[in-house]
Amino acid sequence: MIYEEKTMKSEKIYEGKILSLRIDTVELPDKKYSKREIVEHPGAVAIVPITNEGEIVFVKQFRKATETVLLEIPAGKLEINEQPVECAIRELKEETGLYSENIEYILDYFSSPGFTNEKIHIFIASEVINGEATPEEDEYIDVVKINIDEAINMIKDGTIKDGKTIIGVYMAYNKMKKG
Amino acid sequence: MIYEEKTMKSEKIYEGKILSLRIDTVELPDKKYSKREIVEHPGAVAIVPITNEGEIVFVKQFRKATETVLLEIPAGKLEINEQPVECAIRELKEETGLYSENIEYILDYFSSPGFTNEKIHIFIASEVINGEATPEEDEYIDVVKINIDEAINMIKDGTIKDGKTIIGVYMAYNKMKKG
Repeated sequence: MIYEEKTMKSEKIYEGKILSLRIDTVELPDKKYSKREIVEHPGAVAIVPITNEGEIVFVKQFRKATETVLLEIPAGKLEINEQPVECAIRELKEETGLYSENIEYILDYFSSPGFTNEKIHIFIASEVINGEATPEEDEYIDVVKINIDEAINMIKDGTIKDGKTIIGVYMAYNKMKKG
Repeated sequence: MIYEEKTMKSEKIYEGKILSLRIDTVELPDKKYSKREIVEHPGAVAIVPITNEGEIVFVKQFRKATETVLLEIPAGKLEINEQPVECAIRELKEETGLYSENIEYILDYFSSPGFTNEKIHIFIASEVINGEATPEEDEYIDVVKINIDEAINMIKDGTIKDGKTIIGVYMAYNKMKKG
């Protein structure tokens, strides 16, 4: 039986630059209480940029949370009152310098609904045009182009390890192979 | 240029049941400092259970973080010193009652490396055998079987909104269609 957990108490632990943390006390169907640790996140956008040569444009950057360099599709968090498609255009330009007249919404999903409300909106940007990247002050990013078939192999062999990138590449692959 | 951010200071904000939060002060290439808000998570396992009829077994549950009922593949977080495959067998039994002699590791990935170290290990469990579910005290779960082609459509039309489920279903689809 599905039961919506009623909030009996909500305690804000931390309010930060990117995320907040709160602890909710919820009531379960048996009337017992339980605690839920919840990370609040403004949501994010990720873009699969596809060149006219059928390559995907990735960014490579160090991630402090995982202490690894990761190969990812361009992405960034939503600003206040920003529409996902505006965020997609902005982040694509900032991180790669690319521009596209052809940006298509694909899907949105929750990255890890067991503890965070972060929703990631995925877009495909086709026929991308080169320009100058303008990364944020604390972003150090390399741009890498990879053929889509090779990218699929890099998911299977574990070279690509980022969730939004795995989903975005599969979505782009399905779209391209359909015609 | 890729640069590994050196930790200059690390402050623990919260240490909880499922996650912890810390703020790292890091040094950037230009010697300036920046803050990183990091959610520490023990990691999780997700399992795609496939019946002999080619159906995937999902669980449906309310998620407090997103305030929605979500359709997901069975999953759970790693216990201390637990191997991912042991966790997969345990969570599959707890959430669905199912058992399988045929559990295959597929890949692992980071759910949202911009702010958390959570790594999710994906397994496929074939030829599953029915048994009695034993959910945890604070888990209320429905079990639902769905044909794999329908599940793919439910990703595309936005009915399935959970990241690990999207990745797991695509991996299972690739495996089944290859033979």
